[in-house]
Amino acid sequence: MARSLFISFEGIDGSGKSTQARRLHDSLRARGLDPVLTREPGGSPGAEEIRQLLLTGDTARWSAETELLLFTAARRDHLERTIGPALEAGRPVITDRFADSTRVYQGATRGDLRDMVDRLHALTIGTEPDLTFLIDMDPATALARGLARGSGEDRFEEMGLGFQQTLRAGFLELAAASPDRFRVIDGDRAPEALAREIAAIALPRLGLAP
Amino acid sequence: MARSLFISFEGIDGSGKSTQARRLHDSLRARGLDPVLTREPGGSPGAEEIRQLLLTGDTARWSAETELLLFTAARRDHLERTIGPALEAGRPVITDRFADSTRVYQGATRGDLRDMVDRLHALTIGTEPDLTFLIDMDPATALARGLARGSGEDRFEEMGLGFQQTLRAGFLELAAASPDRFRVIDGDRAPEALAREIAAIALPRLGLAP
Repeated sequence: MARSLFISFEGIDGSGKSTQARRLHDSLRARGLDPVLTREPGGSPGAEEIRQLLLTGDTARWSAETELLLFTAARRDHLERTIGPALEAGRPVITDRFADSTRVYQGATRGDLRDMVDRLHALTIGTEPDLTFLIDMDPATALARGLARGSGEDRFEEMGLGFQQTLRAGFLELAAASPDRFRVIDGDRAPEALAREIAAIALPRLGLAP
Repeated sequence: MARSLFISFEGIDGSGKSTQARRLHDSLRARGLDPVLTREPGGSPGAEEIRQLLLTGDTARWSAETELLLFTAARRDHLERTIGPALEAGRPVITDRFADSTRVYQGATRGDLRDMVDRLHALTIGTEPDLTFLIDMDPATALARGLARGSGEDRFEEMGLGFQQTLRAGFLELAAASPDRFRVIDGDRAPEALAREIAAIALPRLGLAP
């Protein structure tokens, strides 16, 4: 069985990336594939327990460095228990966030830790998605959507427009640095239009007609 | 306020290191100091929560790599929230286990990860105790004590005499490599004799007559 395709969705809160990840998943299922839809932090039983430590309690309970170690532990578990086995079994994996989110969020909050982020990734994760969709959009629109969603789980939603603008710039910088892996999708359109564009890119990579 | 002394106790399960750590703590208090007695994994509220993830549930729930990241996250929190502030406030810190335990246990179970252990420590911890007491003793005696203690918390106790012998050799190897930091204490004696020897070494380092 050939290893299948590892796809991530990235973008600022409220960009619609979770919706698009689910739509691609549904589209692949409709074509007869058996994709896995997952997300970070979390995505495996152990990583979901670590997620609870990260997303509950006082926001100042962990330092940036400890938080980074916990995110990395969760990612390692997610990779070993969910992503890796699925890919090896020939199942495409679609994840809502992966290491790029850590790079961008840490870069925006503690830019001095970027070297630690990169070294820790190289040392303990070492894997990138084969294909990353960056859902890029106007932060003012995204912020309104994010707040409207009201999941209550994402602390970054509370940090305002300027912060979201910094995140957007960070994601675009990563995309520019890895053009072979990233596809930047203009998110300020109807979800159907985004889904069509994404499918047209992903399906051929899976040996399917778009 | 001058930074105080950071002291760790290491050794195989059942070696009596926890008893000796407590005795040294009590001895420093009796001399008018205000020492902090702590332990790993754990030692701060956040690290205690991570400890729960590490020590409960199926022993195979975490891979060696994920476990290492969780131990390191707990250690970072312990260092930032408990050890560092106490030392800065001029209080001696006595910890029952620190990074040497990770080096030795990972070395004994997954020797191929030793490089990862060292790099992760350098990247995210970067601190060593000023003084480490290795309570060295016959593994057969230690194993009997460890099983008798029946804490139920330490999985390594279940792994038998050969494993304890490997751990003992690992600790002795670390001590030989860092003779300035380690003091090897013969643990196969009455606790009072050990406590006297340990106090005679530690007290002068704290400006006290032994």
